[in-house]
Amino acid sequence: MHHTLVTLVEDKPGVLTRVASLFRRRAFNIESLTVGHTETPGVSRMTIVIDSSQTNAERVIANLWKQVNVIHVADLRGVPAVSRDLLLVKVVAPPEKRSEIMQLVDVYRARIVDVTNDSLIVETTGDEDKNDSLVEVLKPFGIIEMVRTGTVAMARGSSPVPNVNGSGK
Amino acid sequence: MHHTLVTLVEDKPGVLTRVASLFRRRAFNIESLTVGHTETPGVSRMTIVIDSSQTNAERVIANLWKQVNVIHVADLRGVPAVSRDLLLVKVVAPPEKRSEIMQLVDVYRARIVDVTNDSLIVETTGDEDKNDSLVEVLKPFGIIEMVRTGTVAMARGSSPVPNVNGSGK
Repeated sequence: MHHTLVTLVEDKPGVLTRVASLFRRRAFNIESLTVGHTETPGVSRMTIVIDSSQTNAERVIANLWKQVNVIHVADLRGVPAVSRDLLLVKVVAPPEKRSEIMQLVDVYRARIVDVTNDSLIVETTGDEDKNDSLVEVLKPFGIIEMVRTGTVAMARGSSPVPNVNGSGK
Repeated sequence: MHHTLVTLVEDKPGVLTRVASLFRRRAFNIESLTVGHTETPGVSRMTIVIDSSQTNAERVIANLWKQVNVIHVADLRGVPAVSRDLLLVKVVAPPEKRSEIMQLVDVYRARIVDVTNDSLIVETTGDEDKNDSLVEVLKPFGIIEMVRTGTVAMARGSSPVPNVNGSGK
């Protein structure tokens, strides 16, 4: 089961190390992790996707709350949310293949952001499944390199980060 | 000076902790950090943006190379590159303000991904400066919450991650 944990932290040295080592000590496999600025200066927002049981997710949430510099934790599982991953992928694209690739890119509403004589860089955003599927479609052409941000997520509706664990109970 | 470090690492437990604590010990301020999957199973790609002098950046790169599970490090400073940050921002948007916000969103080629009676979620990708500027424009309406992935970057052209420090010398 995937859990998307939204964690607001004070932007202090060491907070990333402490959060990362909490997951390591408990042998949690982090599917993805992002850290970025928020609307409040001095506050960063981490989005951590883990694959774990409900019980283990609740345990790690309780542990996150106990960390120094952690301001808020919410699990978006079961909460209607917008979930996005940004993908950049560089594909082998000799002139005779280019239009075929461009058609596929259109279907996915992706964008071409760099072209050379023998390659293209494609950019897209979507949930991880959509991006996985675009990568599968581009693989036969030959992928030179690829980078993904990992998931960021936000609950739908007008409230800020929900003050719930979102366990869907 | 901003340096964008592309680091390929083996997807092993503890690698994030070790990289994060390397920056912490050396009192580097990480502007942003992302970790995600790559085209190679078992290999993750970190994009780390730091604000530091050339000398300090070279020192940290040398230290990254020494870490267990680190496969490759490149500094994209001075290298032509595509650099992207994904932004989700929830804005106060009562019906009488909605069309004004939608016009601004159009100018930035951003997308609206959720609407309620009194709010909107806006999604966009671009370099950090463009996204900063969109946030400034939306601030007067009232920002409810915001999440950013931090920067991911890829060198232009058909080669994979450049095998240089990209010091621009």
